[in-house]
Amino acid sequence: MAPKYLTGDKAGIDEFLSRFDVFLFDCDGVLWSGDHLLPSTAETLEMLRSKGKQLVFVTNNSTKSREDYKKKFDKMGIPCKVEEVFGSAYSAAIYISRILKPQAPKNKVFVLGESGIEQELATENVPYCGGTDPSLRRDMEPEDYTNIANGSMLDPEVGVVLTGLDFHVNYLKLSLAFAYLRNGATFLATNTDSTLPNSHTLFPGAGSVGAPLVKAIGREALALGKPSQAMMDAIEGKFQFDRSRTCMVGDRLNTDIQFGIEGKLGGTLAVLTGVSRKEDFLAEDAPTVPTAYLDKLGDLMG
Amino acid sequence: MAPKYLTGDKAGIDEFLSRFDVFLFDCDGVLWSGDHLLPSTAETLEMLRSKGKQLVFVTNNSTKSREDYKKKFDKMGIPCKVEEVFGSAYSAAIYISRILKPQAPKNKVFVLGESGIEQELATENVPYCGGTDPSLRRDMEPEDYTNIANGSMLDPEVGVVLTGLDFHVNYLKLSLAFAYLRNGATFLATNTDSTLPNSHTLFPGAGSVGAPLVKAIGREALALGKPSQAMMDAIEGKFQFDRSRTCMVGDRLNTDIQFGIEGKLGGTLAVLTGVSRKEDFLAEDAPTVPTAYLDKLGDLMG
Repeated sequence: MAPKYLTGDKAGIDEFLSRFDVFLFDCDGVLWSGDHLLPSTAETLEMLRSKGKQLVFVTNNSTKSREDYKKKFDKMGIPCKVEEVFGSAYSAAIYISRILKPQAPKNKVFVLGESGIEQELATENVPYCGGTDPSLRRDMEPEDYTNIANGSMLDPEVGVVLTGLDFHVNYLKLSLAFAYLRNGATFLATNTDSTLPNSHTLFPGAGSVGAPLVKAIGREALALGKPSQAMMDAIEGKFQFDRSRTCMVGDRLNTDIQFGIEGKLGGTLAVLTGVSRKEDFLAEDAPTVPTAYLDKLGDLMG
Repeated sequence: MAPKYLTGDKAGIDEFLSRFDVFLFDCDGVLWSGDHLLPSTAETLEMLRSKGKQLVFVTNNSTKSREDYKKKFDKMGIPCKVEEVFGSAYSAAIYISRILKPQAPKNKVFVLGESGIEQELATENVPYCGGTDPSLRRDMEPEDYTNIANGSMLDPEVGVVLTGLDFHVNYLKLSLAFAYLRNGATFLATNTDSTLPNSHTLFPGAGSVGAPLVKAIGREALALGKPSQAMMDAIEGKFQFDRSRTCMVGDRLNTDIQFGIEGKLGGTLAVLTGVSRKEDFLAEDAPTVPTAYLDKLGDLMG
């Protein structure tokens, strides 16, 4: 069915809002773009809260913990509680601690990513290495090849490799992660977004940063971010919502909207302030089509 | 047809050698493994030369120029002339200067790779940037997002992105290369080997280092190394050999042996001192099967 265009359609908006009690929001490209707040975001969220809607901020951004993310909301002037934030780093930490449950002495996680992942692993008491370790932020030296090959540089407790968005990715960290994977480590990714919106354009995303490992080992990581339903299950486990009365709001068809459709939510709402263009879902053979769309989230104010 | 096992088969070796005038050799995993010379390599090459065979060293290693590679041969104690070396960086430089012929003012190449690529581009008078530029060996800063987005950090003359093995890959260089690709630059790769043999194990190869760009932009680079026939054509243009009297020797089925088969050479010879195992080509459904194989190159000495 063709998606309903809600911008400027006050009656359509009222009818749409009345169908949902819970709104799951993607953040980058919906509420803001990089460090730039999109128009009327705070007012729109306030309006939804005033109507008694529950809001959950679901983000694939793995560089920030929920605490970090809350600070970003504060800085942007958007009221938000830590409990309303659900990130892919948290989703991965929950998956490892509660589902994968790696057993000692092979229960450590080698992280290719930033501190957000480390913080969420710590809250779930999952041991980790790699990540922001400053001793790994250097060039590969000739002896590193030998010491990785003979195992003396490898932590024998590592049983999982977890990749996310790492702004400090380098050949040394990729070589270590690859060695762990070759030794049989479980291969997880916080998310596999190919790109990251910033400054009104796109930069390489977590899926691109982790792509060298996928290429080298020849298999995909299990992704714990959108559109993986492992993340939807984790959110539902925490918030106990009625899926038929829940709407996913996002800017990406192949992550956000797909996530809502596969999760059998009552509806999905696309906004055009991020990655996907309306041509992407209005085409006749479009693989992923939202229930409705807006030029920007603020248009919900009517 | 099942490949012939030549190790220990003196009559079989003599018959095999008599069928060829030219031998194309892969280097890493055939002549040496990392910095370790494989047994009887120098003697074997000397024996072939003494029989009047022409030798060409065909390597996907893009980090070294032909001059650099000659030095590696010298260090290893293997006689070799610069003219006998044919690397993927040289192949890429020739492709750009003689086939692609980018026109000014869009004729500069942004390099994701090491000095070998820069040297070969310079020998073909192709302008370049990126590569080993020390100003790009740093963390991504917040203003970089803005300056890449508004174009002020981009060189307006760049019309080609060339990726190879870059031991200094980082998020900043990936972001710049991605921006050029989004602006329409031609996407080339010296080679797309997923792994790099070293110290008797594997590390991420050029194809893995370039994988973030493939994932982010959503299309493959045109590869100029093995098994791309662009490289075979370039070698033939230089050496004028008879393909039916030429044999490709290598350790990788999906690059070396595939390269020889697609190039319609008279034969291919696999050695088991590198990436591929004999199980890989002895299996009934093996997609790529060499004409013959040896445990190691030195077994040609009988």
